[in-house]
Order: sequence, then structure tokens, then C-alpha cells
Amino acid sequence: MGLLVVKFGGSSVATIEKIKSIADKVAAMQAEGNQVVVVVSAMGDTTDELIGLAGATGDQAWHREMDMLLATGEQQSAALLAMTLNNRGTPAVSLTGWQAGIHSDDTHSKARIVSIANGRILQELKQGNVVVIAGFQGLSPQGDITTLGRGGSDTTAVALAASLSADRCIIFTDVDGVYTADPRIVPDAHKMSMVSYEEMLEMASLGAVVMQPRAVECAMHSQVEVEVRHSFKNDAGTLITEVDKMEKQRVVSGVAHDTNVARIAIFDVPDRPGVASLLFNKLAQQGINVDMVIQSAMRENRNDIAFTIEKADLNKAIPVVEEVVRELGASGLSYDADVAKVSIVGAGMQSHPGVAAKMFEALAEEGINIHMISTSEIRISCLIDEDLINKAVRALHAKYDLGNGNGGCC
Amino acid sequence: MGLLVVKFGGSSVATIEKIKSIADKVAAMQAEGNQVVVVVSAMGDTTDELIGLAGATGDQAWHREMDMLLATGEQQSAALLAMTLNNRGTPAVSLTGWQAGIHSDDTHSKARIVSIANGRILQELKQGNVVVIAGFQGLSPQGDITTLGRGGSDTTAVALAASLSADRCIIFTDVDGVYTADPRIVPDAHKMSMVSYEEMLEMASLGAVVMQPRAVECAMHSQVEVEVRHSFKNDAGTLITEVDKMEKQRVVSGVAHDTNVARIAIFDVPDRPGVASLLFNKLAQQGINVDMVIQSAMRENRNDIAFTIEKADLNKAIPVVEEVVRELGASGLSYDADVAKVSIVGAGMQSHPGVAAKMFEALAEEGINIHMISTSEIRISCLIDEDLINKAVRALHAKYDLGNGNGGCC
Repeated sequence: MGLLVVKFGGSSVATIEKIKSIADKVAAMQAEGNQVVVVVSAMGDTTDELIGLAGATGDQAWHREMDMLLATGEQQSAALLAMTLNNRGTPAVSLTGWQAGIHSDDTHSKARIVSIANGRILQELKQGNVVVIAGFQGLSPQGDITTLGRGGSDTTAVALAASLSADRCIIFTDVDGVYTADPRIVPDAHKMSMVSYEEMLEMASLGAVVMQPRAVECAMHSQVEVEVRHSFKNDAGTLITEVDKMEKQRVVSGVAHDTNVARIAIFDVPDRPGVASLLFNKLAQQGINVDMVIQSAMRENRNDIAFTIEKADLNKAIPVVEEVVRELGASGLSYDADVAKVSIVGAGMQSHPGVAAKMFEALAEEGINIHMISTSEIRISCLIDEDLINKAVRALHAKYDLGNGNGGCC
Repeated sequence: MGLLVVKFGGSSVATIEKIKSIADKVAAMQAEGNQVVVVVSAMGDTTDELIGLAGATGDQAWHREMDMLLATGEQQSAALLAMTLNNRGTPAVSLTGWQAGIHSDDTHSKARIVSIANGRILQELKQGNVVVIAGFQGLSPQGDITTLGRGGSDTTAVALAASLSADRCIIFTDVDGVYTADPRIVPDAHKMSMVSYEEMLEMASLGAVVMQPRAVECAMHSQVEVEVRHSFKNDAGTLITEVDKMEKQRVVSGVAHDTNVARIAIFDVPDRPGVASLLFNKLAQQGINVDMVIQSAMRENRNDIAFTIEKADLNKAIPVVEEVVRELGASGLSYDADVAKVSIVGAGMQSHPGVAAKMFEALAEEGINIHMISTSEIRISCLIDEDLINKAVRALHAKYDLGNGNGGCC
């Protein structure tokens, strides 16, 4: 018995039949004596359909109006779930983001939650209602509707769980939990019962997007334990929690990969202050995110700089980089869209030397060439040829013995 | 130059192409130096589609949640029109009902506007924006989203025009204006340039629904002049205004008709206080509206009562009436769905005797039998057989010489 905050994504509420199934699940939680707050995304393809309509109005993006438009999707699914619950005899009330007291900044289309005035939610819970809240949205200081960007409903759920001191936050989704590697690539990939916030963050950033990084960050900052589990199965999922709550600190927890990567290199850049700043500022102005970066001194006073971006941004990035090459007097550039990134993640990695060496060894044994390397305290990533990515994931999963569910030793 | 409040219905914003055409019209109004507030309905069939989804959740109607669901339709069209205006270089901002300060009571699904806190609208107008407002919705004292019932967007527009002391309120719709009779039935029916609030109210209640009765009432109470005109034509429409502003007081302004009528009669009801109250209370409890009522003393201490309801309510009404018949010891009941109501409306009628006699004469000349008669100060209605309704409308239109555009003399 306690207060649960549970979130259902768009595929879990895509049809009225699925909403009925969700309603049964929620009603069962309440019948067990829990107070239940449900956060929902928009039904199935609603958001994409609305984006299509908006696109037909003209070429420019009007973020304030877009938020006004898109927020209706979650409002609809919240109302429909509340109706369904009431129709099956479970008292329920739906609330928009602003009704739920979710205050955000005014960065339309990717606003951040600033505070939650949860009085209305507590009042509805006290009256015995299931409270169904439209995810993904907030209210700006100007009184305008904002949306929280990709994965915003996950963030709504985590922020509500923190604000309400919920006993449990469950993200119901269309996967079973967090795996040691993509099960479609590695047949013996193992579902982890627990994963640390930090590991989850690294995995999410690396393409294993079970839960959005911003939501994981929010959970980490507020110390909210989050369980990720399947909407229509009864199996336990994966608990995302603090490292020190985990039974056992694994050296390597999982292998992540990301094929949505392209690489650009600039040759013979003069070695003087401000060069990297010029390049990356110009890319940022175009909304292009840079991921891995290496700079190497090839000869006196001249460097090569290589970096990765999302594949979809490549065509937009090339003219920007060409301009920088001219401006700096660099000798030229090259780019390659046929690359991919493979990473190992593990909270115990930092205290175990030799983890990286083992990774490079595994890739070498398979004849896989490494183009770039980048590391964090709990992650090592290698950029390789895209057509070798599955081979690399399988080799690393085996090398660290992740199939047994214990995490690899070094 | 002035402040205009203009409203576009669902068929006028049914597609992005139509929204673009509306945007051109609105931009032209602003370019002429006007401040423009636009009220929009939901796109085309959106509301019906949402009602369909709600129906699939279960049998019962949950009005609070239904309002939450349906209000999204107008929010979407408001956002899309604002985007379209911005995309064509006309600065615009969309507001929901609550953002526009539209406060209503808490009668979900048919709320009434209580007050409008128009500060945000005035601020946006001052900044040079066209203000696009989601029609049909308000905010209850509890902070919940309400909807204003059928034709609610018309009411939103009129209430805003009153609150903002607008110079003009224009309801753009899919008809040219108010006609002396339905032009599909009477080929020489004439578009009136002006009609009084009272006449418009009677006509709307009688099936000639160019503008919803509640919106007309609201306009009458607030003394807002409303022009009804076609969304995609440039012709002048019909101005709804006070009687004393009209060039000329017509005796009969138009002929209205309504085929959505059924008649029920109860025989030999005891003549004692409380009988009518019992009957009509029971019908009201079932949400059945009663229109015409006649009670006739047939013999000592026993009456017959006959009344009309909407055709769709007949099946729901019969068991209620049967119960009342048993309870009162009446001798029986009869009902008839094949009836229709034809009415003449005219503000000048009250000061001209003989108008009714002329009506009955016209119907008699065509061999049309009258089942029931009811009158108001500016209207006379006759219940006749449904299959004779077109004949009756044409006969009355000719009898009062309405085809010449002057209104009939008596």
C-alpha cells in the first residue's frame, strides 16, 4: 500500500482496447490499497499526425503554437483513460499539465519543469480518485502551454513521483526492461533486475533508449527509484536506482550501440586558441549536436579534429564545416556516414583497470578497426564501421560474460 | 478601423487549405487597421470523432471528462490558424478558453459563461497580434475545463464582443445569412439584410438554425450587433440587431419549419392541480424537452393534454408517459412521429390583428389540417402532417408576399 506514479507510453494507449487493458491494470493497483497517479502519452500516432498538420500550414516552426497543438494529444488520452476507469467503476479524474500544477520554464518545445504545485492532485487522491495526468506538458510563467520535448512524459512521471514522495514510479513501456545488450542482436542478452542511474544515463545516451536521458537525470537528482516494465506483461522489469542500493557492483553492465552516427574530420587546423569554439559554436547555432570529439596533433602547429554527429544532421553540417575550413585555412575535410558506435557501460569500471584493454582486444580478435575512442568514468565507446556493429556487440557481450546475468569481471 | 470579433465554424476550418483561406481573410481585416479577435470551432468532424472514441470507452457519459476531451478540438484549430497567420507574416497568438479568461459555471457539457477576464486578450491585441481563441469552452470555478454546449463557439464570440466592446461581431458560417424561408423549399426566398434579436430567437428555436439560440440570447442581453455571413463569399449577410434600429418593422419576417417533432397526447386526465407538473417533471428528469403544449377540457373534470417533443426522444418518452397514465388513472395515450411544425415570425405581428387568421386561411386553402397551434408575441406555430410541410412553407411565404424582400403586410 502506498502512492504509485505509473506512466504509460503512446503505444500502450494507442486504441480504446489498449486503454481498457491499462484501466484494468490501474484499477487492480488501486484495489490493492494504493493511491494511483497515472501519466499518459498521446495515443499512438496522434503526435505525428498533428505535426503533419502543422507542417502543412507553412515552413516555419512556431514553437509556442506547436506546444498548444501537441499538448492536446495527451489531454485526449488522459480524458479517455479517466472515462474508461469511471465506466468500469473506478473513480478517476483527468488533469492537464497546468491543472496538475506542473510549472515549467518558457523554452517552448523543450521546456524544463521548474516546480510542481501538487495541491489539486493530493485533493483528488484524498477523494479516492485515480488521477490521470496528461504527460509531456507544463505551464510557462507567462501562462502558456509548454511541452517538455522528446520523452517528456517520462520526465512528468519522475517529477511527479519526486514531488509526491511516491513509494514507486513505474514506467510501463513496450520493452521488458533494460537488457545487457539489444536482444535482437544478442540472443543471450539478459534483462537486468537493477541498473544504476549513471549506467542508465550512459546507455540511454548511447542509443539504448528504454527511458529518456532527461527523465533519468531527473530521477537521479531527486533520488526517485524507477521501475521500467512491459505494459502488457506481468514480469518484473528493471529497477533504476542508486549504485549503493545494488546488490553487487558490476564492472560491465551492458553493451550499447548506436548506428545513428556520422563522422566528420577537418585536416590541418592551425593550433591556436578559439578554433574548436568557432567550429562547435557554428554547429550549435544550426541545432547540430556533437557527440564524440578528438583532436590530434599531427605535425607542428597543425591539428586534425574529428567529431561525430547524428546521421540526419550530416547534410546540414557539411556546408557549415566547409565554411569553417575556409575561415581557418584548414587543408580540407572528410566525412563518413557508414559508421556506428559501440559502448560498454558499467558503474564498477572506474575501479577496475584493464577494462578498456579487454574491449580493444575483443574488437581486434574480430578484425574490427577502431576509428575513434571516447570514454567517461563508467563508459568506453568506440566508433567502428557500421556493417560490423552486430558482430562487435556480440563479441563484447561474450567477452564480458554478460549472458549469465552477473555482469562481467575484468 | 475598430475591434472586430469574428467566428469561423467547423466547416470553415475543416482542412489546412480552408484555414489558409480564412487566414487571408483575417489578415486583410487587420491590414485595414482593425484589431481582430478570431473565435474558431473544431476542424470538420473532429468533435464527432472524439465523441466516437468516448462512446467506445463505455456506456455512461462522464461530462467532466467529455469536456476535457472535446475542448482539445478547438485548441487544435486555434493553434493551427495562429501558425498559418504567423507563416503568412501576420503576427498571431492562440489562446484556450481559460487563457482567454472565459469563466463559466460548472454545468459540464452545457456550461454558461459567467464572466470574461479579458486582460490577456487586450495585452496580445496591444502587441499587434491577431488573437485566435478556442471557442466552445470555459473554466469552471473548480479550475476544470467546461464546454458550452451546441453552438458554443457562437456564444463565445458574442460574449467576447460584449466584453471587449467590439465594434463588430461577425459569425462566418456556411450559409449566406437569414432567409425569409428555407431557399431549398422556397425558390424565391429572400435574404434579409436585418432581423431583430427576437425574430432570430424564434426562428432559431423553430429549426432555422443559422445561429444558436443561446448565442442570440446572449447578443440580445448584451446589445451586441451580430452579422451572419458566408465564410467564403464576399456578399453582405444578415445583421441581427434591435427592433428599433431596423429601417422598417415587418409584420411577418419569415417562415420557419421544423420536421424534428413528434406529438404525444394523453386522454381523460383528471382535472386537478399538479397533474401537468407531474408529467413534465418526469419528462424533464429524462432530459426530454417539451415544446408545444395544449390542454383542453373535453368533458367535466377530465382533460386531454397534448404536447410535442423532439422525434429522437419519442422512444424514451413513451414508457415515461405510460407510467404517468397509470399513475393518474388517465384513459390512454397516442403518439405520432409523422408531424412537423410550420411557423411565421415577425416583430410587427403583435400590433397587427388578423395575422393568425391569414395563416390559417393559407393552410386551409391548401387543404392542410392543423393539429395544434401555439403562439408567442411574435410567432405563430402550427403542427401539421409532416408530408405537407414544404407545401405549407411555400403557401405561407407566398401569402405574406415575402419573396419581394419587404416582408408581408397583414
